[in-house]
Amino acid sequence: MTHLLLALLMAAGPAQLARQWRVAHEKEIVAELSALVAIPNLASDKVNIERNAAAIAEAFTRRGASVKLLRVEGAPPLVVAAMDGSRARPTFTFYAHYDGQPVDASQWISPPWEPVLRGTGSEARLYGRSSSDDKAPIVAMLAALDALRAAGAQPSVNLKFVFEGEEEAGSPHLASYIAQYKSELATDGWLLCDGPVHQSRHSQLYFGARGVTDLEITVYGPARPLHSGHYGNWAPNPIVALTHLIDSMRDADARILIDQFYDDVSPLTPAEREALAAIPPFDDDLKRELVLGRTEGKLPLNEAIHQPALNLRGILGGHVGEKASNAISTEARASIDFRLVPVQTPERVRQLVEAHIAKHGFFIVRDEPDPATRRAHPAVARLVWGAGYPSARTPLDAPLSRQVAAVLTEATGVAPYRLPTLGGSVPMHLFTDGGRTPVVGVPIVNHDNNQHAANENVRLQNLWDGIEVFAALFSGLR
Amino acid sequence: MTHLLLALLMAAGPAQLARQWRVAHEKEIVAELSALVAIPNLASDKVNIERNAAAIAEAFTRRGASVKLLRVEGAPPLVVAAMDGSRARPTFTFYAHYDGQPVDASQWISPPWEPVLRGTGSEARLYGRSSSDDKAPIVAMLAALDALRAAGAQPSVNLKFVFEGEEEAGSPHLASYIAQYKSELATDGWLLCDGPVHQSRHSQLYFGARGVTDLEITVYGPARPLHSGHYGNWAPNPIVALTHLIDSMRDADARILIDQFYDDVSPLTPAEREALAAIPPFDDDLKRELVLGRTEGKLPLNEAIHQPALNLRGILGGHVGEKASNAISTEARASIDFRLVPVQTPERVRQLVEAHIAKHGFFIVRDEPDPATRRAHPAVARLVWGAGYPSARTPLDAPLSRQVAAVLTEATGVAPYRLPTLGGSVPMHLFTDGGRTPVVGVPIVNHDNNQHAANENVRLQNLWDGIEVFAALFSGLR
Repeated sequence: MTHLLLALLMAAGPAQLARQWRVAHEKEIVAELSALVAIPNLASDKVNIERNAAAIAEAFTRRGASVKLLRVEGAPPLVVAAMDGSRARPTFTFYAHYDGQPVDASQWISPPWEPVLRGTGSEARLYGRSSSDDKAPIVAMLAALDALRAAGAQPSVNLKFVFEGEEEAGSPHLASYIAQYKSELATDGWLLCDGPVHQSRHSQLYFGARGVTDLEITVYGPARPLHSGHYGNWAPNPIVALTHLIDSMRDADARILIDQFYDDVSPLTPAEREALAAIPPFDDDLKRELVLGRTEGKLPLNEAIHQPALNLRGILGGHVGEKASNAISTEARASIDFRLVPVQTPERVRQLVEAHIAKHGFFIVRDEPDPATRRAHPAVARLVWGAGYPSARTPLDAPLSRQVAAVLTEATGVAPYRLPTLGGSVPMHLFTDGGRTPVVGVPIVNHDNNQHAANENVRLQNLWDGIEVFAALFSGLR
Repeated sequence: MTHLLLALLMAAGPAQLARQWRVAHEKEIVAELSALVAIPNLASDKVNIERNAAAIAEAFTRRGASVKLLRVEGAPPLVVAAMDGSRARPTFTFYAHYDGQPVDASQWISPPWEPVLRGTGSEARLYGRSSSDDKAPIVAMLAALDALRAAGAQPSVNLKFVFEGEEEAGSPHLASYIAQYKSELATDGWLLCDGPVHQSRHSQLYFGARGVTDLEITVYGPARPLHSGHYGNWAPNPIVALTHLIDSMRDADARILIDQFYDDVSPLTPAEREALAAIPPFDDDLKRELVLGRTEGKLPLNEAIHQPALNLRGILGGHVGEKASNAISTEARASIDFRLVPVQTPERVRQLVEAHIAKHGFFIVRDEPDPATRRAHPAVARLVWGAGYPSARTPLDAPLSRQVAAVLTEATGVAPYRLPTLGGSVPMHLFTDGGRTPVVGVPIVNHDNNQHAANENVRLQNLWDGIEVFAALFSGLR
C-alpha cells in the first residue's frame, strides 16, 4: 500500500478504513469467528469453557495486547486484554461474554457448535450457538484492531477488553471478580457489546439493562403416577396446581399480579422519554415479522421493556402427543425468568414472590420434599432460585453517553437510537460502581438472531458494520 | 392324582381346586405371563401387535378352544376363542385387551417389555407394560382353564373369550367389529376383566365405566423463539396463554367450569347409592399411601368417580431445569383426557369444550395454522380430538349382576364390593347393545399397579386370586 493511499484512507476516517480492510479479509474474519463458535461454551462445561478463554487470550496476544486470565474459585476465567498507550489518556473497557445459553440440539437445523454459513447476499448468516451472543462482537473487535494496525493507526485511548465466561449462567462470580481485581479492571467507562441492534436494523445504543433472576418451581401430585380414570378429579393433578399458581402470578396481558411488585419501579426521566419518542414506531412491522396476532398488554415494545416482566421459560408435566397417557403425573415444573427495572432488586422480588406463593396455599421447600412433608401440607412447592442481579441505568447526558453517540453518528452518518434500558439483561450494575462509572451498551448483532434459542445466527452484514463501529470507537473516543 | 382326591377337590369347589393346581404350577404361569408381556404391544406397532394376537390365539388353541382372528381394515385383530358345550346352556363372554399404553422408557427402572420379578412374599410383582393391564387377566383365564381341565371339570356354560388390540388407543374399531361380526360375538352377557380390584385389596365388581375422550391443544407464540429480555411482556408467551385457557376450563378442586358441562350427568339410583355406601371408607388410607396432603374437591373417591373429570395428561412448552433458557417459545401444548358419566357423550362434550375455547378468545384450527391465520387472530388453538366413547351402566339388580356377585361371594367367602361405575374407561357401551345385554366388570389386578404409567406391575397374589375367580365363574355361572 502506498503512503498516499494510506493517507487517503485515514482521511476518510477509521470506519471507511475498516471497511476497506474487511472487504479484503472477509474469509479470514469468518474463519476466525467460526473457529471460536466451534468451541462448545456452556459455562458449566469446565473443559470447553477454558478452551474458549484460551482461544480468546491467544487472539488478543497475537494482536499485541497484554492478556491475563483472572481467576476466582469455581468460575470460568475472566479474560482481560489491555492495549495501553499513554497514561495521560483515559482507559475505556469493552465487555462481552464468551459463554452461551444451553442448547436443545434436537431443535437445531445444524449442530449448535458446528458453525455453518447459510443465506446469500445481505442475508448471509453464520449459524451456531453464540455466533451472535457474544462471539461476533469479540471477533469484530479483533478485526477492527487488525484494520487499524494495518493502516498504522493508534487507538486514541487506552483500550481494555474484558470477556466473561458465565454471563448466560447469571454472572454469579462477576461481583467477586470486580471486588478482587480492582486495578486490573479499573476504567473510565465501560462499553458493553452484548445484545442486538434495533429491529429495524438501525444502529442503537443502550444505557441501562433490565436486571434478571430466575426461579424453578416444582409442585407435587401423587407419589406414583395414577390412572386418570380411577383417580381423576380426586387425586390432585400437579399440572393443574401449577397452572393455577402461574395464573395467579401474572395475567395473559403481562401484568404481574404479585402484591407490591410494581412498588419499586422508577418512572423514566423526561430525557429518557424523549429518547424513546425519537425511535420511530416499528411494532406493526415486528408483529408481521414474528407472526403475532396480538401483543401482551397495550404498551409498545420499547415502553414494555421499561417495565418488569415475568416470563415462562418452560413448563413440563406428564406427556403430550404420542407419549401422552391417561395418567396423573407425580410432579409438574415451571421455569420462570423475571426481568427487573430500576430500582427493583432480586432479593426483594424473591421475598414478594415467595410471599405470594405461600399466600396461594403452598408450603415452600428448597429440596425434594419427603413424604411426611408432602402429607402434612395441602400443596408443596419446591423453589430453586438462580443467580440474579438488579438493573442499572447510566444517564443519557453523561459525557461518555454523549461521546459514544457522537462517534457513531460521525462514523455511520446517522444518529443511533438511544434506548434508556435494554430489554435483555447484562450485569451492568456491577460495572457502574454505584453509579460512579458510566456504562454504555454498543450492540452490533442482528435482532433476528435466535439468541438463547435454537439456530442462533449472526448476519454477516452486522458483523461487517460492527467492525466499523469498533474501529471508529477505538480511534474516536477521547 | 387318585379319584378320591379329585372328588374331594371338586367337593371343595373350583376355587380351591384352582388354588391347588396353581400352587403346583406357579413357575409355568409366571413364565407364560412373562412371555406375553415380553411382546411390545402398542396398538400402533403393527408388527408386534399381531405377534400378541398370535400368541394369545395359540395359547387358547392349545387349551382346546376354537379360535378366530376377526379383522376389520386398519385395526389389530380381535381374538375370539370359544369353548362350546351344550347349545342349551347360555354363553358368557370374557373380555380383556392385549394392547398397552405408550411408554416413556426413560422413566422405567427396567425396560417396559423386558418383564422382571421384584419383591418377595405376598408383595412379589412382575414388572412390565401390560403385566396388569390386561395381560394378567388373560393368563389367569388360561390357568383357570388348565386347572379345570386337570381336574376333568367341564365349564358350566359356553365360554367365549374376546381380546381387543387397541383398547388403550380408544377402541376406534370395536364398534365396527361388533357390527360386522354379530354371530361370532353373540352372547348372553359380558364379563369385562379390565381394571383393578379395590384399593383395600378387597374383591370388587363394577357395573359401569366412565366414558372417555381426549384432546390435544396447541397454542402459538412468536414464529421463532424470542429472547425473553428483549421481548418479554410484549410478545405473547404461549405457555401463559395455555395456562389461562386450562384454568378457565377447570378449577383446582376438579370442578369443570365449561358451560352446561354437568347438564347431562344422571344422578345415581338408590340401589347404586346403597352399594356405594356398603364400601367401607378408605380415602384416608389411600391418601397416606399416595402421599397426598389434599384431594381435589370434597367428594370421597368413590363418589368423585361418578362425576365427570377433566384431567391434564401432560403439558409442555419451552424447557425446564438445566435446559431452560431465557426465551419465549413458539408454542405450548397440553394433552387432556375427559372422563364421562351417564348420559354424557363425546360428541356433546366436544361441542361444549370447543364453544368454551372459542368464547375464551381462541380461533380454532385442526391443522398447523399458516402465518396468515396466526396474524389474523389474537389467539389460535389447534385442537386434535382422539377417539372416544360414552359411559355405560348395567343395573345392579340385573340377573347377571346378582349371579356374578353370588359366585364370587361363595368362592372367596366374602361379598365383593359393588361399584356402580368404574373410574376408568372400558368400552362397555358397545357391549350392552343398547342396554339389552348385561355387562359386569370382574377385575383381578392390584390397584397399585402403575397401569398407564412407568413401572407397571402385577402383584402375583392378585394373579393367583384371579385364577380362582375365573375357575369359580367358569364352573359356577348358569
